[in-house]
Amino acid sequence: MSHLFTIGPVEMFPETLEIGGKEVPYFRNDEFSQVVFSASEGLNRLLFNKNGEIILLTCSGTGAMEATIMNCFTKEDNLIVIDGGSFGHRFTQICEVHEIPYKAVKLDNEELTREKIDEVMGDEKFTGLLVNLDETSNGQLYDIDMISEVCKENDLVLVVDAISAFLADEVNMDKHGIDAVILSSQKALSLAPGLSIVALSEKMLKRVESIDSKSVYFDFKDYLKNGERGQTPFTPAVRLIIELEDMVNRLEEKGIDNIINETHELAVYFRKRIREIGLDYPDYPLSNAVTPVIFPDENAQEVYRKLIDKYGLTVNPSGGEVADTMFRVSHVGNHSTEDFENLICAIEEIINS
Amino acid sequence: MSHLFTIGPVEMFPETLEIGGKEVPYFRNDEFSQVVFSASEGLNRLLFNKNGEIILLTCSGTGAMEATIMNCFTKEDNLIVIDGGSFGHRFTQICEVHEIPYKAVKLDNEELTREKIDEVMGDEKFTGLLVNLDETSNGQLYDIDMISEVCKENDLVLVVDAISAFLADEVNMDKHGIDAVILSSQKALSLAPGLSIVALSEKMLKRVESIDSKSVYFDFKDYLKNGERGQTPFTPAVRLIIELEDMVNRLEEKGIDNIINETHELAVYFRKRIREIGLDYPDYPLSNAVTPVIFPDENAQEVYRKLIDKYGLTVNPSGGEVADTMFRVSHVGNHSTEDFENLICAIEEIINS
Repeated sequence: MSHLFTIGPVEMFPETLEIGGKEVPYFRNDEFSQVVFSASEGLNRLLFNKNGEIILLTCSGTGAMEATIMNCFTKEDNLIVIDGGSFGHRFTQICEVHEIPYKAVKLDNEELTREKIDEVMGDEKFTGLLVNLDETSNGQLYDIDMISEVCKENDLVLVVDAISAFLADEVNMDKHGIDAVILSSQKALSLAPGLSIVALSEKMLKRVESIDSKSVYFDFKDYLKNGERGQTPFTPAVRLIIELEDMVNRLEEKGIDNIINETHELAVYFRKRIREIGLDYPDYPLSNAVTPVIFPDENAQEVYRKLIDKYGLTVNPSGGEVADTMFRVSHVGNHSTEDFENLICAIEEIINS
Repeated sequence: MSHLFTIGPVEMFPETLEIGGKEVPYFRNDEFSQVVFSASEGLNRLLFNKNGEIILLTCSGTGAMEATIMNCFTKEDNLIVIDGGSFGHRFTQICEVHEIPYKAVKLDNEELTREKIDEVMGDEKFTGLLVNLDETSNGQLYDIDMISEVCKENDLVLVVDAISAFLADEVNMDKHGIDAVILSSQKALSLAPGLSIVALSEKMLKRVESIDSKSVYFDFKDYLKNGERGQTPFTPAVRLIIELEDMVNRLEEKGIDNIINETHELAVYFRKRIREIGLDYPDYPLSNAVTPVIFPDENAQEVYRKLIDKYGLTVNPSGGEVADTMFRVSHVGNHSTEDFENLICAIEEIINS
């Protein structure tokens, strides 16, 4: 018995594993183009990306974050970056390397508020805002309604890394005026790692058209041109794209609201139970995707290790300063309420032994 | 019945497909580090890369080509690029985008000679040479002994894209003084696409250390630092790395010379037979990895289509000017002599019908 409660890779679905075990077909043909079209159209519907386009990149989420910055902004821009954990901080590192001016809204495991953003913005003129909607390193879910309002009021282009939030929390490009959404295969899409997705709004497509990306591999214009015929400029992660199309079809059948609700219920159940066994989770708003579990006895690493060795259950360890006080449990992937009850029982046995 | 004679993806082995059908494990732990170490050490042995290092990149071959140029050269360099087809030409495009000075040795489906390189070099001072050892677009295998000699005489850093040549033709970093070798998962390694590999020599490691790559996702220094503990800076293509380790173990068991010989024999057999049925292949030196088949009746596209529809056999179509006169047949992947005899019989039936 083994079960993955990590936040990527996640516990996969049998339909995906079946595709994973099959020969990878040749892809420079119409058959594969149809798979690309089908996956892209489905993703646009799931993201409410009317008149926008999907770019399929063979890289990790960080590669897609960097590609998006390189193709959507220049040295003439000035960005606000929500820097509330290691993934938000990565956006600032990317801006540094590409010499794109920015100011960071730094958070120390505290809630993001409108006041904190306003304070950093002051009277300065900004052109865009970058946010990891669910800051995976500590589970905080930022307030997309508030962020969207800030962007509309200040005419900011809005880039949302929804790598962890997609399918767990609401990500609606049309409603919230989001101009770029970044996704990865190994989160709630429950595929193997290696494929990232960038959805661009109609407005962002015009911006991309006017920018010289200074990259061959990450040149969005080349992807958009090839995308017209359902292809990519370079050999893509063919197997993952086939798995993606299958998954998108099944997600659409289920309905995006039902999927988010299901994940929400699993998160609520687990959080109720974790307090019942004497542990805790943070006070700031949490994504449905992940629960950071707080260990007052600073034995998080010991419990993590015993969960694997004695029960075959893998949760997501945390790094740095919080390594001893926190691990994280993913609610995305192929899980049932029973899986979380099993995890709770195992944790309880370990901390009481 | 179906069989892939394409040059990536290729016909895969059952052992790889078995891994592809399994859950992808969590990777930020010692168990996965051991897989990375084992794969890297095996690759260094197969490439005769003494004291060098392996970098595992989640991207296509072009991503790895660009990453290598960004991390190994600067605007202070001056490169010779062998531009004998679409992949050699891609090296020149990468140099253009990153403003790295270069001169191209242009070939028009003709053999690369020492004289052609000398002519382009003239009395100018160069610092490096870039070559796709097997120019996959037309199958030419360049003379690595001659290229190595040029580099040693002129003190040039040598970068070899061996994406198609590896395991089909000799790629010996130590013997030929190669400083960087670029590989991809979907060629002779016979894995799914999505993973690329860069092997750096001891000498190139010093160069990389002194260069600012201007990239977050493709920063080799970050990969080398994380590589010390068997990890990558960003979520890697975990499933492909597990498949890679399995494949490298099996390749080492078989022995590199035996593998190259086997592929050579398949290529020789197919080439003999293709002339016997009245077709042809080019006169320039060919890689064992691929045979470009020439159709004097300009019906290459028609034969390609009928091979799929009537026989389930997929060969690699060619693009551009030669689309009607040539397709390509791969000899890397899971093939037997019988597979090639079946292909010959099918082609013969089609062209005589």
